[in-house]
Amino acid sequence: MKKTLMAATFALAGAASADAQEIQVFPSGASPSVTADPKNFSGQVIIDLPVPSSVEAPASLGLVNFAPGARTAWHTHPVGQTLIVTAGKGWVQRDGQPRQDIKPGDVVWIPAGIKHWHGGTDTNAMSHIAVTYVRDGQNVDWMELVTDEQYADR
Amino acid sequence: MKKTLMAATFALAGAASADAQEIQVFPSGASPSVTADPKNFSGQVIIDLPVPSSVEAPASLGLVNFAPGARTAWHTHPVGQTLIVTAGKGWVQRDGQPRQDIKPGDVVWIPAGIKHWHGGTDTNAMSHIAVTYVRDGQNVDWMELVTDEQYADR
Repeated sequence: MKKTLMAATFALAGAASADAQEIQVFPSGASPSVTADPKNFSGQVIIDLPVPSSVEAPASLGLVNFAPGARTAWHTHPVGQTLIVTAGKGWVQRDGQPRQDIKPGDVVWIPAGIKHWHGGTDTNAMSHIAVTYVRDGQNVDWMELVTDEQYADR
Repeated sequence: MKKTLMAATFALAGAASADAQEIQVFPSGASPSVTADPKNFSGQVIIDLPVPSSVEAPASLGLVNFAPGARTAWHTHPVGQTLIVTAGKGWVQRDGQPRQDIKPGDVVWIPAGIKHWHGGTDTNAMSHIAVTYVRDGQNVDWMELVTDEQYADR
């Protein structure tokens, strides 16, 4: 059953091979970009998820584009997350601490269980690659949105 | 003892915080680029390792720049590796199979235990981000170099 589901998902994703034990190249643009769920993100956020979830890697991979003012909700990760900033100017903030500036080429390590958010600055878009480690099928625990007051309070 | 070693490594790396349970921003360029070991790479290969190995993430992160003709040795990974191609034009090849072209924005999933190599083409440089999953402190098993004859045989 699992094998059938995996094969179907690969076929949908247009992957190079339906064999999970082969090297798989997922060409740029093969999967459509998606608009982030407004339950978990504020503002305009576009996400590319180039690797089908059927690929049994220890992390999921997302390419995330935040418009100015856009940001994630508060959240934690069960294992942790690595961000690689690729464009623009952004912020990352742990609950109760000052926010930190992030710029292209910076790499951010967010350990498990730390309540935080990340996004663009008030004036600039920001893009990052997110490597989010998975445990028991989960890679994030979403909490409440970052309010405009919280976002403005720096 | 472990804590002392970790603190020392963080101090050397100039990381934002010596507390492994904080969000850590590793600024672009904070760690010097290194020349790849010629035992495991052919040609000119420059690697950035922005995250100190003391960070207890499930994967290591490398930014790898291959000159034209440069490539890894044959190797396998104990858990697997995800490549995100960021520039140029490259090749990835599993032992015994045709090589595949890779270009910026492509994502490559290499499952555990598959003998393969990757690098630039004969005419073009290629850069990729490598997310290499770690088990028991190991993320790669190096084998013999890719000979000029193997590299030319396409």
